[in-house]
Amino acid sequence: MAKKYVYFFGNGKAEGKGNQKDLLGGKGAGLAGMSSSGVPVPPGCTITTETCRYYYANKKKLPKELAAQFKQAMDKLQKSLGKKFGDSKDPLLVSVRSGAKFSMPGMMDTILNLGMNDQAVKGLSEKTGNARFAWDAYRRFIQMFGNVVMEIEKNDFEKELESVKEEKGVHLDTELDTADLQKVVDLYKNLVKSKTKQAFPQDPWKQLEQARDAVFKSWMNPRAISYRRLNKIPDDIGTAVNVQAMVFGNMGNDCGTGVGFTRNPSSGEKVFFGEYLTNAQGEDVVAGTRTPKPIKELDKDMPNVYKQLREITSRLEKHYRDMQDFEFTIEKEKLFMLQTRNGKRTGIAAVRAAVDMVKEKLISQEEALMRIEPDQIAQLLSPVFDANEKGGAVKSGRLMAKGIDAGPGAATGRVAFTADRAVEMKSDGPVVLVRPETNPDDIEGMVAAEGILTAIGGRTSHAAVVARGMGKPCVVGCGALKIDIEEKVVAVNGTSLKEGDYISIDGFTGEVITGQVPTLPSEVVRVFRGELDKKQAPMFQYFETVMKWADATRKIGVRTNADVPRDAKMARALGAEGIGLCRTEHMFFAPDRLPFMQKMILCDNEEQRRESLAKLLPFQKEDFKGLLKEMKGHGVTIRTLDPPLHEFLPKNHEEASILSQKINVPADRIMQKTHELHEFNPMLGHRGCRLGITYPEITEMQVRAILLAAGELQKEGIKTVPEIMIPLVGNVKEYQDQAAVVRRVADEVKKDTGVKVKYLLGTMIEVPRAALTAGEIAAEAEFFSFGTNDLTQMTLGFSRDDAGKFTKVYLDKKIFADDPFQTLDQTGVGRLMKIAVEDGKKIRQDIKLGICGEHGGDPESVKFCHRAGLNYVSASPYRVPVARLAAAQAVIEGKKKK
Amino acid sequence: MAKKYVYFFGNGKAEGKGNQKDLLGGKGAGLAGMSSSGVPVPPGCTITTETCRYYYANKKKLPKELAAQFKQAMDKLQKSLGKKFGDSKDPLLVSVRSGAKFSMPGMMDTILNLGMNDQAVKGLSEKTGNARFAWDAYRRFIQMFGNVVMEIEKNDFEKELESVKEEKGVHLDTELDTADLQKVVDLYKNLVKSKTKQAFPQDPWKQLEQARDAVFKSWMNPRAISYRRLNKIPDDIGTAVNVQAMVFGNMGNDCGTGVGFTRNPSSGEKVFFGEYLTNAQGEDVVAGTRTPKPIKELDKDMPNVYKQLREITSRLEKHYRDMQDFEFTIEKEKLFMLQTRNGKRTGIAAVRAAVDMVKEKLISQEEALMRIEPDQIAQLLSPVFDANEKGGAVKSGRLMAKGIDAGPGAATGRVAFTADRAVEMKSDGPVVLVRPETNPDDIEGMVAAEGILTAIGGRTSHAAVVARGMGKPCVVGCGALKIDIEEKVVAVNGTSLKEGDYISIDGFTGEVITGQVPTLPSEVVRVFRGELDKKQAPMFQYFETVMKWADATRKIGVRTNADVPRDAKMARALGAEGIGLCRTEHMFFAPDRLPFMQKMILCDNEEQRRESLAKLLPFQKEDFKGLLKEMKGHGVTIRTLDPPLHEFLPKNHEEASILSQKINVPADRIMQKTHELHEFNPMLGHRGCRLGITYPEITEMQVRAILLAAGELQKEGIKTVPEIMIPLVGNVKEYQDQAAVVRRVADEVKKDTGVKVKYLLGTMIEVPRAALTAGEIAAEAEFFSFGTNDLTQMTLGFSRDDAGKFTKVYLDKKIFADDPFQTLDQTGVGRLMKIAVEDGKKIRQDIKLGICGEHGGDPESVKFCHRAGLNYVSASPYRVPVARLAAAQAVIEGKKKK
Repeated sequence: MAKKYVYFFGNGKAEGKGNQKDLLGGKGAGLAGMSSSGVPVPPGCTITTETCRYYYANKKKLPKELAAQFKQAMDKLQKSLGKKFGDSKDPLLVSVRSGAKFSMPGMMDTILNLGMNDQAVKGLSEKTGNARFAWDAYRRFIQMFGNVVMEIEKNDFEKELESVKEEKGVHLDTELDTADLQKVVDLYKNLVKSKTKQAFPQDPWKQLEQARDAVFKSWMNPRAISYRRLNKIPDDIGTAVNVQAMVFGNMGNDCGTGVGFTRNPSSGEKVFFGEYLTNAQGEDVVAGTRTPKPIKELDKDMPNVYKQLREITSRLEKHYRDMQDFEFTIEKEKLFMLQTRNGKRTGIAAVRAAVDMVKEKLISQEEALMRIEPDQIAQLLSPVFDANEKGGAVKSGRLMAKGIDAGPGAATGRVAFTADRAVEMKSDGPVVLVRPETNPDDIEGMVAAEGILTAIGGRTSHAAVVARGMGKPCVVGCGALKIDIEEKVVAVNGTSLKEGDYISIDGFTGEVITGQVPTLPSEVVRVFRGELDKKQAPMFQYFETVMKWADATRKIGVRTNADVPRDAKMARALGAEGIGLCRTEHMFFAPDRLPFMQKMILCDNEEQRRESLAKLLPFQKEDFKGLLKEMKGHGVTIRTLDPPLHEFLPKNHEEASILSQKINVPADRIMQKTHELHEFNPMLGHRGCRLGITYPEITEMQVRAILLAAGELQKEGIKTVPEIMIPLVGNVKEYQDQAAVVRRVADEVKKDTGVKVKYLLGTMIEVPRAALTAGEIAAEAEFFSFGTNDLTQMTLGFSRDDAGKFTKVYLDKKIFADDPFQTLDQTGVGRLMKIAVEDGKKIRQDIKLGICGEHGGDPESVKFCHRAGLNYVSASPYRVPVARLAAAQAVIEGKKKK
Repeated sequence: MAKKYVYFFGNGKAEGKGNQKDLLGGKGAGLAGMSSSGVPVPPGCTITTETCRYYYANKKKLPKELAAQFKQAMDKLQKSLGKKFGDSKDPLLVSVRSGAKFSMPGMMDTILNLGMNDQAVKGLSEKTGNARFAWDAYRRFIQMFGNVVMEIEKNDFEKELESVKEEKGVHLDTELDTADLQKVVDLYKNLVKSKTKQAFPQDPWKQLEQARDAVFKSWMNPRAISYRRLNKIPDDIGTAVNVQAMVFGNMGNDCGTGVGFTRNPSSGEKVFFGEYLTNAQGEDVVAGTRTPKPIKELDKDMPNVYKQLREITSRLEKHYRDMQDFEFTIEKEKLFMLQTRNGKRTGIAAVRAAVDMVKEKLISQEEALMRIEPDQIAQLLSPVFDANEKGGAVKSGRLMAKGIDAGPGAATGRVAFTADRAVEMKSDGPVVLVRPETNPDDIEGMVAAEGILTAIGGRTSHAAVVARGMGKPCVVGCGALKIDIEEKVVAVNGTSLKEGDYISIDGFTGEVITGQVPTLPSEVVRVFRGELDKKQAPMFQYFETVMKWADATRKIGVRTNADVPRDAKMARALGAEGIGLCRTEHMFFAPDRLPFMQKMILCDNEEQRRESLAKLLPFQKEDFKGLLKEMKGHGVTIRTLDPPLHEFLPKNHEEASILSQKINVPADRIMQKTHELHEFNPMLGHRGCRLGITYPEITEMQVRAILLAAGELQKEGIKTVPEIMIPLVGNVKEYQDQAAVVRRVADEVKKDTGVKVKYLLGTMIEVPRAALTAGEIAAEAEFFSFGTNDLTQMTLGFSRDDAGKFTKVYLDKKIFADDPFQTLDQTGVGRLMKIAVEDGKKIRQDIKLGICGEHGGDPESVKFCHRAGLNYVSASPYRVPVARLAAAQAVIEGKKKK
């Protein structure tokens, strides 16, 4: 028996099967699947991918058997529709499309209306009663076929069209009438003749052959090759060719077209959802030239069709076991499904639909967990703009600029240009902090603000990281803004806002809008804050259901990065099982503490420094008590001082003068210290354990504060698990130096208080050398926490504060697939992590392994950490649910691979 | 037969052998060796290390056989010397010392004059005719024994001594007379009694036993344990105990003491060299209280002793096959050798002695190569201060400060505080450039200066690296200097110098001296410069001999880092086999080019940039021609632009104004650009291939210049091997992007000129991620050059411009064994290099591997590169001979290991 190269589909049957993607390509298999399950699709046939492979393996010759099989299928098609190619009464028109196993959008243009010729145009005119439509379809076909198959520049056709419009003195295509379009067709035919030295093919069979061959040829065009290289699609799988009858929804009032969803894609509610138009083409619904009707009205217009549509789409949802996004056309009361696919949805809808489908027994819990993108969970936590209000604002020209969406959520408030002003202005109402960039000095201002907007920086800039940690909407890197701090003005292209003017930022989209845009609060957060009863919060219940399932599935722990009890409390509510990173330095920026810190830095000798440190100790002790209390029973990893000391000092003489009065040190002396401490590359400078090694008294004070805090709680009967973490270790001897200080202080505290506090002692792995010598370090340290922010900076040699200047080019040129500060670079940084995990475990089998970089809240990175064998990830509070879900997905994905 | 625990030596015999270090310890084996080869050493015996091991394996009990064997040996000692323990005429006094296999200096104090008691002190008084000396020896013995053996605090003895001095109203020990010292002895005895509840042991045999046991005990004192841990000496090898008769050179004019060398340790010349004093103790020669006589005069004073000394020392040199540094004592015309060891020597002496010894057939060529520390070779290339002149200057208080010796050599000149002034002042005579620090702007000034002195920075700071590259003396990090650029004054502790005042810097020692100190030029360099005929340059011939031997031995190639033909030429003379790194940006700092570069940076669009670049092209082409010509036939690796663009721009408004007039761009615009380009961590910023990727036109211009230069030389019949190197690649896609530009330009150049230039295309491995993904990169790149400066910065997370602030603490705390920017961190950075070598070779077997960081000129690092399988190292021109020698040593060391 001859090999089968062509598979027919239509009339409730199909020769192929829905799962034959390898042979029929994605689209072909889909059409076969729909057709055989009785869904009315316009009939047609698929030429297999095997044909394409044969073509390339045999010097671009097609198999002998093909011609006959193809003809047979097309005859069947004509027969089944009662239409004929080139018929002057009711011509058959088809579309020809490529279709590989994997979607390759834009690889080749689609050819529509194939079969059109001088006869068929008459037939179509008659059939539709619309000669203009028929002639327009003809000229479009010539243009499409001429370009794709005959390789004539699109521009050449455009010129001809323009000439006719010019002659007539009109500007729009729609202003051309039938006679004009007939003229265009003539001109196009002449163009084809002059360019190709042959007439435009009138024989639909010839058209079909040429279109088919063009699809096969297109498989190896440079665009397609490069697309496959980028998307790691093999070159040798080939494409199928799909030939499908055209259907028209614009042949009269018994025709129509529409789009819809099987559930509400915004809310996830199980309601039939969609719009349609009678006597219209597909594009009319989308184009917005006519106002479409709600799908319910179809029930009145064509009750049978409506019933059939509901029945089909609910069948499709069951078949694909997911919410469907579908397109349909009605030709003379006959329904055709043109496409169905899993529908895109908001995070809220994803959660609700997934949980509902489990209740409906449509999918399993594990499937439900896989249906929600972990990032979508974050949407349930963020306030959102009222979509109508925002749309209105944009339409009325209030869109000011667009930056990078760095912290999800919506914020509206009055512009403040400094952290201090933000704090002051907050008492009068909501504030948005607008800065060229932020730094640790701005923390209090960020706490006060509803949202943060910066001109500089990327998704992991200080502003972005801190904002996400606080769950604040944030837009960064909005380079178009000209911010004048002195004049207190932010301007862009003529629009300008002064301090106190209202501004709105959308952290989902990066949009910056002038004036107020009303927001809707997040239900989930309001429940956790105690502002809403959970019984009145259905979305909260959906959220908790998903989280419960995720927790039951995941293996890796999820902690949070938190520096203050306020954040720790929210993180606990959001499911954090401990603190993976407390940055002790953040505590020093509070206005009542900073002067002590500054005075300490300005000291000339150890004795003076110890005096200043003694004044900071009670503050730190209380901070730690608060954190340990919130996390009772769970581990709390506290990092000793990390940033370079100059970050705490005034940057200019004015600031120095103010400080001078506060701490009674001459401003000149302050500025001198600022200069002394200046560094060319502070990122690689005097910070981390290098501070503790040069000033052991700082480590001493911090460790004493931790152990005293834990001891006092222990006395109150509260269980504490402090984990002291030494930052920026690159050499085991650095760790040994600091570990000796910690052990010594622990002995002293035990002696002084009589309480023995159990603690773990470990280190960050954030310097590449630490990963490379992890075996040596593991011999001493009880835990590793991968500080992947710095590890990424050093491994890639990228300063994240500076990289913004060229990462756009890198993403455009596809040098980076993702921003490496957002999604872990598994190849490079990941290899270092694997080395460290392997070498560390070899020396200390039960070493505790975690990650506390920003990546701890990124789904792909969480999954990597699961695979790499880490014990936990630590994410900023509002990313904790994201990490929980991703961790569960990692387990499910792991099962599938087995 | 009972086991032998005690080995006697003396009288031209020894029971042990010189190679029995395991059994006798280092010192014991040495004494046995000398003694058995007939060298007169004070006789004595060694208790074996095995005894110590027995002691610790048997609950601190000594083997039964020991007591008898020890007694026997000591009896033999008394007999051989005709002296007796505690004798009131001629008492035997001995020293007791520890001596493990490996030297452990300071582990235990030596006990001298053991055997001293109330009788012996009289005997010694009589024998020496110096009662004060005898009583002083007695009180010192009690003090030493009391502290080391009886564990009484040193301070307790000091207090007693002080009380006697106070009573007498004197300040110095030497002001005490015999009676006073007798009083001290009494007080000491009482102290011992009160502290230990027993009298000071008068029985020398008791003293001896206790001292012996104390030595064994000391093996496990915390100091020794920690010393062994740090130096990786096993704990279980034990120490020997050496008991040796005391000899005295101060018993009259037939006595004496001296030190000497078998060859001149400064010049290496084979002449007997030394000094001595009659009637003196060893320390008198060193103390400088009496002026010693040249050793030749001993020939007159005691011709027989002189003859014997010459005979013995030349025998020792033959025995140890190396120049000896010896100490001797003459007791009543009897010569005793107290110590002999291989003598320390200058680089010049090391080279000369090694070559001479090969000629004398004393050692082999390979041994000669191992005798010279590679760094010492650099001394043959550097001008040196006349030692007498410098000594005089220091004595007269002209030593101003001491910094870090960063570039060997001596320089004297007038102070210039800016590069421009250095250039201007040079026409009137030698200049020393004095700067807080240097940067690329200062290059021309550094070229003009004789030497460079900076207040900030370490051995691999810009100043140090560039100075060494130029072979200029350089002192850096001289923090004591207060440099006021505005006022043109450098001051330290009251001494200050103005612009134009003379200053002298010693790059060997870091000394900074006011005024002129005359220098002696390096012979070798003068020959290479053509200023001296090599026949008149014996040191040049020695140098060339060593280099010839090294080249015949080494396997790894040695290239140079050079940017200008001048440096390339010297490097060739010094043996460079190609250029491993040409930094193209250095060419842009010349005054005639910089404005074009600056204008290019200030351009707003590609077209303008291309115009500016076109003006730079002819300069670059000529530079490359010069380099390729100097290196004809050898590889020349040219790196495309590397530093961030802001390095080329003015830093302040004043500089901007000057530039503004030159290039007709408003100063405000210039400063705006400076601000725009400002980076927080320029080291990790917009530089390296990131520039070429964002501005491909820069890469294009540079590649065009390289290929045009090579093409023109090719036409002249000169062979060229250009190797184009892409910097800072961390991702293979970066490399692909730049490689595509290079290949395209190569095609264009071929089309334009008709000349096809062969070139290699490769990359630096300087970002950790490049090493971690070396396999991917090797699939594309034809060579790797390890840029270990940046690789060290990123792997360790250390900015070398900033690390100076804490590396001292790190070196003090022994966190760093060496400065990682000077000597490659083999554990961390080395592991990355090995990963890259292994993965790279797996993908491309014949990949060319080199190193172009500063480490390429560091001996230990060169050896590592040899072992790691690199093809070549690249060193700054004046380090090329160092690398050649180190490379040869690596081969010899490798043979030994097999």
